[in-house]
Amino acid sequence: MKSGDVKKSTVKRQIMWGDLDPLGIVFYPRYYEWIDVSGHVFFQSLNLNLGALVKERRIIFGLVETGCRYHLPARYNEWIEIVTSIDDLSDKTVVLRHDISRFSDRALMVEGFEKRICLDVSDPLMFKAIEIPKDIRNILTKAHSSSHKLNS
Amino acid sequence: MKSGDVKKSTVKRQIMWGDLDPLGIVFYPRYYEWIDVSGHVFFQSLNLNLGALVKERRIIFGLVETGCRYHLPARYNEWIEIVTSIDDLSDKTVVLRHDISRFSDRALMVEGFEKRICLDVSDPLMFKAIEIPKDIRNILTKAHSSSHKLNS
Amino acid sequence: MKSGDVKKSTVKRQIMWGDLDPLGIVFYPRYYEWIDVSGHVFFQSLNLNLGALVKERRIIFGLVETGCRYHLPARYNEWIEIVTSIDDLSDKTVVLRHDISRFSDRALMVEGFEKRICLDVSDPLMFKAIEIPKDIRNILTKAHSSSHKLNS
Amino acid sequence: MKSGDVKKSTVKRQIMWGDLDPLGIVFYPRYYEWIDVSGHVFFQSLNLNLGALVKERRIIFGLVETGCRYHLPARYNEWIEIVTSIDDLSDKTVVLRHDISRFSDRALMVEGFEKRICLDVSDPLMFKAIEIPKDIRNILTKAHSSSHKLNS
Repeated sequence: MKSGDVKKSTVKRQIMWGDLDPLGIVFYPRYYEWIDVSGHVFFQSLNLNLGALVKERRIIFGLVETGCRYHLPARYNEWIEIVTSIDDLSDKTVVLRHDISRFSDRALMVEGFEKRICLDVSDPLMFKAIEIPKDIRNILTKAHSSSHKLNS
Repeated sequence: MKSGDVKKSTVKRQIMWGDLDPLGIVFYPRYYEWIDVSGHVFFQSLNLNLGALVKERRIIFGLVETGCRYHLPARYNEWIEIVTSIDDLSDKTVVLRHDISRFSDRALMVEGFEKRICLDVSDPLMFKAIEIPKDIRNILTKAHSSSHKLNS
Repeated sequence: MKSGDVKKSTVKRQIMWGDLDPLGIVFYPRYYEWIDVSGHVFFQSLNLNLGALVKERRIIFGLVETGCRYHLPARYNEWIEIVTSIDDLSDKTVVLRHDISRFSDRALMVEGFEKRICLDVSDPLMFKAIEIPKDIRNILTKAHSSSHKLNS
Repeated sequence: MKSGDVKKSTVKRQIMWGDLDPLGIVFYPRYYEWIDVSGHVFFQSLNLNLGALVKERRIIFGLVETGCRYHLPARYNEWIEIVTSIDDLSDKTVVLRHDISRFSDRALMVEGFEKRICLDVSDPLMFKAIEIPKDIRNILTKAHSSSHKLNS
């Protein structure tokens, strides 16, 4: 495998009317919706389909923590780009980093992250934290190291 | 004024069908929507109407940073309670703390925060950070100290 | 049972910042979110818990059609009231009517409806329209006639 | 201008986790969000920027009525396509038709419409219905007739 092949995924979207608040800037919970989408797209880019993981193996990557820092407001019709990569990886958890920038000039608008934990959801009323299964762990490790190499 | 009178506000709501994801638990960006509501309710409880602040004084409390830690998933029909208070206050910024708990047994479900900065939005295309005006600062300081007294 | 006891349910809510578009009026898909909530609350008021129906009997009331007519825009901090009742009932379908009015002066803001059909969802990939089971049908018929008596 | 050039616009999107309800199908208010987006994209495809119309001419196309008929539920990861065209045009109003289909087999999933009325919003607290200005009317008429020709 060439290093760097699958380490980042990108989602582009245009700011729409319904994303805006009365000041004409994005209402911030929308960023989290897009970050969630970007996380799913990232897993897909690693050939990990989260829908199939639930259905076939009763595993999800549930949320432990999320956060965003806001640098620039996004406005009507602007194109933004969300770049997702792995920021940290441990036995049970993975931290996704989501950088949202304005497409026109690459200005960084929002820095977001999601810390997700591997959960066994066989019992729908009592989710249980487990170690990330080896096959998935391998995929994430590769994605993590290649993204690191890129940054160093 | 008695200390502690206005230091906390509470929003109660019931988890509805549209809040849930395919696992039957709340889709996490919803928490941020409710936290935003709770922030507005908190300001209202201090007799600060954010809508009027924009219209009459061209001031908003824009977002610098938000975050949530998730402890327990919320499910269909459960009642939750969001308690909002001031966690920190500086010349230009205020940090709101939002504790979301299950109403039935007071179990803590989500801990959220919003760091907001005072902005002059006279120019709709170029928001400018300013010091929190004195009258508003006084109100927030009182709310902050009374909430602290309560906790100590 | 006294006629008229359970025929209508009411949901009150305050318009919040995140509900608004850049013109400062409610972004219309929000009305559908609130109408969906009001439908669930209506069923609850008849002691029909939709969550339990799915889980225990694999029955849902899925959507065939929805619609809204908009008379007046709702604005920040206004209180609205959504009154829900049964507008029509047949072997397989029920039509809910949702009247949204401004609380202060009872001005009608939005008229919405949901036409829902009884579905067997035992096979999660192939929902099947069925007749509304007799016990549920009885409850809906009572609610329907009492609401009619009220209007006539 | 060749007839048929601008009469339809198309938006493609993938169903994401956050769009789904506990049954794993799209929560119906989401369709209205996408329809609103598709309406804006349609106006853009006619070189009518709704954001600029508000700012420069204080005109919006506000909503009179919306509706959807649901034929097939959409599920996780499916690609859908929303095709928008003008269904009717009068002095003050325009009706947009939005056909949502599954991309893989072109099966029709949802038929939606928006009836929009031309409003003067110079007074932010009192919107006033007006005739569609001539230049805009011309653009819409052309789009309407070309889409009709296509259908006949």
